[in-house]
Amino acid sequence: MAMLSEPELRLDPARVQRNIARMLARAQGAGVRLRPHFKTHQSHAIGQWFRAAGVDAITVSSLAMAEYFADDGWDDVLLAFPFHRGMTARIEALAQRVRLAITVADPDTLDGVRLQVPVDTWLKIDVGSARTGIDGSDIEAVRALAQRLAGRSDLRLCGLLAHAGHSYRVRGPAAVLAVHEATLAQLRTLQAALLPSVGPLQISVGDTPTCSIADTFPGVDEIRPGNFVFYDLSQWQIGACAADDIAVAMACPVVARHRSRGQLVVHGGAVHFSKDWMQIDGRQVFGLGLDPAASGDGWAGLQPALRLSALSQEHGLVDAPAGMLDSIRPGDTLLFAPVHSCLTADAMGRYRSLDGADIPLMPR
Amino acid sequence: MAMLSEPELRLDPARVQRNIARMLARAQGAGVRLRPHFKTHQSHAIGQWFRAAGVDAITVSSLAMAEYFADDGWDDVLLAFPFHRGMTARIEALAQRVRLAITVADPDTLDGVRLQVPVDTWLKIDVGSARTGIDGSDIEAVRALAQRLAGRSDLRLCGLLAHAGHSYRVRGPAAVLAVHEATLAQLRTLQAALLPSVGPLQISVGDTPTCSIADTFPGVDEIRPGNFVFYDLSQWQIGACAADDIAVAMACPVVARHRSRGQLVVHGGAVHFSKDWMQIDGRQVFGLGLDPAASGDGWAGLQPALRLSALSQEHGLVDAPAGMLDSIRPGDTLLFAPVHSCLTADAMGRYRSLDGADIPLMPR
Repeated sequence: MAMLSEPELRLDPARVQRNIARMLARAQGAGVRLRPHFKTHQSHAIGQWFRAAGVDAITVSSLAMAEYFADDGWDDVLLAFPFHRGMTARIEALAQRVRLAITVADPDTLDGVRLQVPVDTWLKIDVGSARTGIDGSDIEAVRALAQRLAGRSDLRLCGLLAHAGHSYRVRGPAAVLAVHEATLAQLRTLQAALLPSVGPLQISVGDTPTCSIADTFPGVDEIRPGNFVFYDLSQWQIGACAADDIAVAMACPVVARHRSRGQLVVHGGAVHFSKDWMQIDGRQVFGLGLDPAASGDGWAGLQPALRLSALSQEHGLVDAPAGMLDSIRPGDTLLFAPVHSCLTADAMGRYRSLDGADIPLMPR
Repeated sequence: MAMLSEPELRLDPARVQRNIARMLARAQGAGVRLRPHFKTHQSHAIGQWFRAAGVDAITVSSLAMAEYFADDGWDDVLLAFPFHRGMTARIEALAQRVRLAITVADPDTLDGVRLQVPVDTWLKIDVGSARTGIDGSDIEAVRALAQRLAGRSDLRLCGLLAHAGHSYRVRGPAAVLAVHEATLAQLRTLQAALLPSVGPLQISVGDTPTCSIADTFPGVDEIRPGNFVFYDLSQWQIGACAADDIAVAMACPVVARHRSRGQLVVHGGAVHFSKDWMQIDGRQVFGLGLDPAASGDGWAGLQPALRLSALSQEHGLVDAPAGMLDSIRPGDTLLFAPVHSCLTADAMGRYRSLDGADIPLMPR
């Protein structure tokens, strides 16, 4: 492997395209629309791989991201971040260019709002993640918001939207499926309860763990997973992917060995990986080693004996067993799977594809 | 305050320039050269404020940053990240444009290295932070590396360089001064021990806590603090700055209220603040509220009743007392002091100065 002057985030296009094809097949098998979340890759080029696979509707997490993908011809865009009044002018401009959907998480955001251009509107339901949305167990609160929207021509009420983010806090397929089933049961209950007063509502769900593990989505119209395009160590720990599905890897130059404390120092810090972490054996881990592929710049299986155990802005400390410390030298390149690929990609701002392409993320 | 469509990182130019002037006065008072670390602001524009104040030598943490500031006319640049062989070609190119200094943290990085263009070379000494460098208590190891460099014309040995990063783990001026005094005592011991074999060596130190608190730097030639340009909650908690010295603030739109759990949701997540955190009263905090200034977009004192207690990619959860929950509405703007301004600036990629200027960071 050639020496690097600085870290780079490698991307395996074959794994990315396999992850896309598999999720699309899962959605088709379950009879639901796939509206992938593009906040993970934030890239025109990778978006085009989705388009080539047959995807024509997307989810984004910010106005800037909606504008960026509209610029590349995406014309069916769901902004899955709660609407607030400060968004009004940019939403009106966007809705003149694309079919735009917004989400409403708090009835007070609607005070004094009257859009000049109509948009589809989803009610954000909190199905247990306790981040945001109307409490899904409070049917009257959901009904009150739905009725407030039902008569409006600018905000066209279209459905109930949830993100079962608490699936990230469980481990193993059975626990993820329990979250999935409880989520869908609650949303179907709301849908039935609201039918008499506001008519039929669609259901949209979309976290990567449940979408990767569940085979059926009874009552669901569309799914919005995002992370699956790359997966990462968090998804692997949850049981949502195999290690072999992880499609990005940080390549880091080794800069020093510290045999007395069993550590290597690499160029690869918080501005590369982000500071998201996971626990393994009760200890903080910011990334795990990957074995290099037999040839080229790619990678094979996990090498969990190499653990990124601390990050500062540019430095990463890597715990390594004595035998590996002897065989790795400053200037060598080590590969790491990231804990959270969305934040790692955002921190790096670009990918280096194994086919040689330099793929930028949305500019900031 | 005008409504925002998305978060912005506000910068108070008066506070930045006051922080610069104060540190320069401290350095002049102590008779040491100020070679500020530019990894915090990463900006040509803010670099020019340093130049206007009389600074002509800088520190950077990556090759890309060295190249970026060389492009803006900085011609005396110290790369305070350990040298490794993969840097060779870019270092040779840079050293033809500027007076370049590198740091060596591991003797094995020198194997097979012969630069075509000479550079100044510092020995990185670990004075107790246990990140990287030669153990400063091991005089023989330092001497061996110094002697290996002493005869070389490409790597011109110039001094001993340390970063007392363990000053970030203590609280209060007395504890910071104890780190400072132990650091300087160890470096002077090494300097004296090496004098007979390799001649006089300079001493360079440079963490923001010690440089903000210590009044004297006996034996030191230059200091390299960086964070002081903005300061942040970490420095405030250490006792290295007053809350009023914090020169950047994240402005976040409120998107929802959750009275039942005493929380607000803001647009302001891991891609804005980074995920660095601190402990207050035993709990994780990602930022603290700031009171808005009486007029304009600036801020006054800390409002610690508003605590950013959780971040996902775009969402921030803010713990707020009931009285404040009633008076804050979706669409309003809240201001937060960051935990770690270096990582927050890096995550945002740009500043919005209170005088209206849009100031970009180094592109990625």
